[in-house]
Amino acid sequence: MLSAARVSDPLILHNCRLLTMDAELTDFSGGWIEITGDTITRLGMGTPPPGNRMDMGGDLIMPGMVNPHCHMSMTLFRGLGEDVDDRLFRYILPLERGLMTADLAEAGATLAAVEMIRGGVTTVADMYYFEDRIGQVIDRAGMRGIVGQTLANFEAPDHKTMDEGFARLDALADLYKDHPRITASAAPHAPYSTGIEVMERVAAWSDAHPDSPVQMHLAETKPELDWAAEQGATTVELTDRAGLLTDRLIAAHVMYPTEDDMDLIAESGTHVAYNARSNGKAGRGVAPITALRARGVQVGIATDGPMSGNTLDLFSQFAPAVMFQNIAQGTRSALLAQDVVRMATIEGAATLRMDDRIGSLEPGKQADLIRVSIRDPRQQPIYDIYSMLVYATMPTDVQATMVAGHWLMQDRTVATLDVDKTLADFLQTARLFKINMAKLDIGS
Amino acid sequence: MLSAARVSDPLILHNCRLLTMDAELTDFSGGWIEITGDTITRLGMGTPPPGNRMDMGGDLIMPGMVNPHCHMSMTLFRGLGEDVDDRLFRYILPLERGLMTADLAEAGATLAAVEMIRGGVTTVADMYYFEDRIGQVIDRAGMRGIVGQTLANFEAPDHKTMDEGFARLDALADLYKDHPRITASAAPHAPYSTGIEVMERVAAWSDAHPDSPVQMHLAETKPELDWAAEQGATTVELTDRAGLLTDRLIAAHVMYPTEDDMDLIAESGTHVAYNARSNGKAGRGVAPITALRARGVQVGIATDGPMSGNTLDLFSQFAPAVMFQNIAQGTRSALLAQDVVRMATIEGAATLRMDDRIGSLEPGKQADLIRVSIRDPRQQPIYDIYSMLVYATMPTDVQATMVAGHWLMQDRTVATLDVDKTLADFLQTARLFKINMAKLDIGS
Repeated sequence: MLSAARVSDPLILHNCRLLTMDAELTDFSGGWIEITGDTITRLGMGTPPPGNRMDMGGDLIMPGMVNPHCHMSMTLFRGLGEDVDDRLFRYILPLERGLMTADLAEAGATLAAVEMIRGGVTTVADMYYFEDRIGQVIDRAGMRGIVGQTLANFEAPDHKTMDEGFARLDALADLYKDHPRITASAAPHAPYSTGIEVMERVAAWSDAHPDSPVQMHLAETKPELDWAAEQGATTVELTDRAGLLTDRLIAAHVMYPTEDDMDLIAESGTHVAYNARSNGKAGRGVAPITALRARGVQVGIATDGPMSGNTLDLFSQFAPAVMFQNIAQGTRSALLAQDVVRMATIEGAATLRMDDRIGSLEPGKQADLIRVSIRDPRQQPIYDIYSMLVYATMPTDVQATMVAGHWLMQDRTVATLDVDKTLADFLQTARLFKINMAKLDIGS
Repeated sequence: MLSAARVSDPLILHNCRLLTMDAELTDFSGGWIEITGDTITRLGMGTPPPGNRMDMGGDLIMPGMVNPHCHMSMTLFRGLGEDVDDRLFRYILPLERGLMTADLAEAGATLAAVEMIRGGVTTVADMYYFEDRIGQVIDRAGMRGIVGQTLANFEAPDHKTMDEGFARLDALADLYKDHPRITASAAPHAPYSTGIEVMERVAAWSDAHPDSPVQMHLAETKPELDWAAEQGATTVELTDRAGLLTDRLIAAHVMYPTEDDMDLIAESGTHVAYNARSNGKAGRGVAPITALRARGVQVGIATDGPMSGNTLDLFSQFAPAVMFQNIAQGTRSALLAQDVVRMATIEGAATLRMDDRIGSLEPGKQADLIRVSIRDPRQQPIYDIYSMLVYATMPTDVQATMVAGHWLMQDRTVATLDVDKTLADFLQTARLFKINMAKLDIGS
């Protein structure tokens, strides 16, 4: 087993552009940052303090990125049925019901972890099945994560009854009770696919587990709106009545809220995950992200699963995240580049209620950071560092990734997972998966 | 001076996935392609013919990409005033009037050439000033290009009167009359900024130079529509009346055509350059690309200038190009991934009327191709090669770039331009430019 390289104490990274993402957006050229154990102890600019110094060669050091909505295991489905509008019922549910196993979920999630570490994501909120195995992957990868047991009224690959589903959730919560980097979470699929009764049961579970987040797709599709309308309410209202709109909820998508819905979301402290590429590829329109943020809602930039948005880094989300808002509002300034980087770091951390520990580079916070090369011709010149990150930086520019003071990657070599073996194992799994998919005649 | 590595004849690239982009979208696994001089002579799958063989290690070989609308020199402005709606009048025109010189234009274009070669673009249509110098850059880089002399009714950095502008255009046409890879072009800025009289003069010039394309921004902005409305017509109608709507025209943007305008564009054989990121960042809405293509209009995927779209590779344009159409039409299938790759290659070549020579890998065509790594974890698995290229491939995956049988890059090392020196020179130029910009108090 590989393991994350432990730094000698204290470690000082210097000769870097230090983008702290603190409340004042402090940004040091010629900066340094001191890390003791898993914690940032000091930072500044100019001559670094003595100690175990590492020269960053002028690269950018910024907080590790937070991905608040993902289905890591679905790398197995990446690229399937791209142009099929009803993919959930034609591909995803039959595949999950017929083929998904704990081993497949783990193989898919391991590839996803490699991609995220290489793309600068240090924290992920995942919702899927067999999340005990996903937690093992995140743990082995050295990342930080939230693992969400999906609960829904369709046949699930990891439980047959709702009681079994909740038993899995309890076991998951027990398993990760004291883990320093992993938290268990309930993940009702969506209001229409979970149903009021189960949503209420999740709400009761959540009240009894106030430190666990809840993850749910919300106001994502038109059929969901129709389902709610039949009950004389909006899907957000039904979610609220079931007791799920709280500051523990990470609501993914939120494409179609009414003005009143947005007020409800804001007043309840509900958080939102913005999945720009997923929404755009699906042709679902533009989520009212700026209207939500104007109400004080914390919004993170998310990838969604790789079957929906394909890539699992946040850089790929940045330009679409802005462009959709700009197009919807007919201006260049609906969402600023610095807002996007905020949403990928400190605001994303806030959506997971982890902004006291991660999301910015400040003394006392966990040492979750990435080193990004900013010398590619494509990135020059730099008039505005946020614009450069949002519009001209690629996941392949990430040179190193650190979580809790451990290097997960240096010089683009992943330390915690064997990339070649992960890819070879994954491709073998994917080959069998394709064969079995053909047997089930799915997607045709 | 560096120079493109000349291949020994014939050269056989083998052990590759060969994406030909021919009319049948022939796609060989375990393919090979034979290049003799500047020309593709044979291709196939299985055992390659004897000769000077190069093993491609399972990478993808596809046609070099065609960028039909760019302002290469504007790398100097990249990242400036991102959130300022009226950038043309607040930044661009004052900067060009006050500061742009032939040396600056060349420095900016050289950086752009490096980025394009590294990102897989082999042919570019550029419109700007000092295009004799841009032609020198394209020539030195070993790329293929169209260089367009901008003509407009605002003060230009390279000519004081319209007569001088046309004299420059004539000189440019003369300079590149017999060049195998570079063609001169007239580039009226846009209908509103050129005026009917000059547009008519350009049309007459174009009739006398039928082998030269014409490049123009068309139906790009709302003020342009207002200007035309004051004359009782659409901007496309006025362009048609001036004699410019022909199959020689590469019309950039075409955001706001009426149904009748689209008919006019189709009937005249006018070509369109789709600049998704530029349009999206500007919040201008969604160009009716699928409606144009349904009428038989050839559309290429373009970057626009780096002040507008930031990056100069086409991979960065792919996902936005699809997503905007999908959002506008509320479906996943408005534009298919294979359509996008077509538009970046053979259809892009057709917009420049060069599809008889480039844009697909077929015997008799010029050997313009790129080698793309397809083994990154982020690209796996591959259910559909076009989907993988459009949604999961980065410009940094391009390993090698060839134009007319010459390698411009191998193993990501550019052969024709010194990347370190280009970047150092550019940064020195950019520093002085920033100082001079501050003196002019531009953008404040």
